[in-house]
Amino acid sequence: MPPPILEPIVVATENSPHAVRLLARQGKHTSPTAGYAPGYIQANLLVVPRAYATDFHSLCLRNPVPCPLLAIGSATSLISPTPTTPPLLTHPFDLRSDIPRYNVYHAGRLTASGITDISELWSSADSHVAFLIGCSFSFEGALMAAGLMPRHVEMGCNVAMYSTSRKLNPAGVFTDGTYVVSMRPYPQDQVERVRDITRPYAAMHGEPIAWGWEAVQELGIADLGAPEFGDAVEIKEGEVPVFWGCGVTPQNAIMRAGDKIKGTVMAHAPGHMLVTDVREEEYFKTQATVL
Amino acid sequence: MPPPILEPIVVATENSPHAVRLLARQGKHTSPTAGYAPGYIQANLLVVPRAYATDFHSLCLRNPVPCPLLAIGSATSLISPTPTTPPLLTHPFDLRSDIPRYNVYHAGRLTASGITDISELWSSADSHVAFLIGCSFSFEGALMAAGLMPRHVEMGCNVAMYSTSRKLNPAGVFTDGTYVVSMRPYPQDQVERVRDITRPYAAMHGEPIAWGWEAVQELGIADLGAPEFGDAVEIKEGEVPVFWGCGVTPQNAIMRAGDKIKGTVMAHAPGHMLVTDVREEEYFKTQATVL
Repeated sequence: MPPPILEPIVVATENSPHAVRLLARQGKHTSPTAGYAPGYIQANLLVVPRAYATDFHSLCLRNPVPCPLLAIGSATSLISPTPTTPPLLTHPFDLRSDIPRYNVYHAGRLTASGITDISELWSSADSHVAFLIGCSFSFEGALMAAGLMPRHVEMGCNVAMYSTSRKLNPAGVFTDGTYVVSMRPYPQDQVERVRDITRPYAAMHGEPIAWGWEAVQELGIADLGAPEFGDAVEIKEGEVPVFWGCGVTPQNAIMRAGDKIKGTVMAHAPGHMLVTDVREEEYFKTQATVL
Repeated sequence: MPPPILEPIVVATENSPHAVRLLARQGKHTSPTAGYAPGYIQANLLVVPRAYATDFHSLCLRNPVPCPLLAIGSATSLISPTPTTPPLLTHPFDLRSDIPRYNVYHAGRLTASGITDISELWSSADSHVAFLIGCSFSFEGALMAAGLMPRHVEMGCNVAMYSTSRKLNPAGVFTDGTYVVSMRPYPQDQVERVRDITRPYAAMHGEPIAWGWEAVQELGIADLGAPEFGDAVEIKEGEVPVFWGCGVTPQNAIMRAGDKIKGTVMAHAPGHMLVTDVREEEYFKTQATVL
């Protein structure tokens, strides 16, 4: 009689970042990551063929509000962008499987959506470079703690995200990118508080880039009721839309680069983020300015 | 008989950065700094009352293309923004006198232009914070070395600079800033070379933010023949305008903030830069990416 097959022992508490990643690796966690491992930073992933890595790095550095860079690396090894930034992951990891779901692009077009493993597409360590980019989940916790519940959290849906006409600073092959923004409605007289609360989250898009009804036209948004990504949310009497830089921006830049990009680009599927081992407060400690 | 009064001994070669600063300190160098101490980085200066320093710092970090931060500090002491950036000044200095000419702003309005010393306005070390911001002089040398002489250098005039409608990412009190751009015309078929040559100068505005005739309207520039700053230059048949982020942007942001800024803001006078002790190649060595 053969010995019983043992499941790998998950040496992590159930809702720890490490546990979420292990379950994702095993294909057992395939849902969005909002609400998992609360207090830990979650990150957007973008993986580009090595030939475009320098241009994409430059795109992030030139557009830190929509594309705040947290780390760069291979599938199993990451480097922080500054010597004082803490490592995002403190256990062995594999970016090809540790995220619940992925999107895949070829020549700027989405060719696979929501797959749970990209190991076969990213088989060689040298072929691609991974970029991890900050996410607004972090500052939403701070808004909630201040009694400024984001509407989509209240409604139990995804945040509303819009393509805009606001240009990114071009970088190499990425000449035609524009900001993607997330929108949360707030009463006009709370906008300054909302700005103050989200401002310190510099590596997670920071304070809004625009607010008020006049910003809708200025950003080239045709219809607030029809977001390009996520779900439309109600805007109540006396509220105004408030817009933040959004981590979907880099995927949008890949799409706009079209067939200038040869090879396979991979990314997390929206809402299905990399759950990191860094606590928000730990990250802020390292973000202290010289002032 | 009293002993003869001795002039201070300038222990610096005539065209060294240190010599230029010492002569400026003595009121003997009051002209623009272009062409002085070639190969050394020159920097824009912006000095804000301490109450606005955090917001201004955030403005720079959120808009690194027009406002690339080289150092922050007091009149006599500077801190580099990253641990690997070399110190800008390696001799004792005083930012209140070591620049040939200064501008002064109150409530967003220019109240003094071209004065040679601001020691009386910035008498207390704690009252203000200084920001040093990269300048496009550096990449102009690289363009010239590649046979792509900027037109204004050829014409012996100042570079053409324009206010645009392209918004800065807002930061605290600085909500209404827009890009100021510098413009150099180049043949359409040289634009990619020009982009490639200036791209590595990340701390000096890097590659252009826009180019071609369609960019003129897109940036909201009414008349290329009437730059808001500097001098108009000829655009020849077959050439297109190429636009870069410009270090006048922060002064423009101060003006647009208007009477939201209480107290005295000081800056270098356009073209009259801080000549630093850092060689361009030395700076690039420290800018190596992790890729």
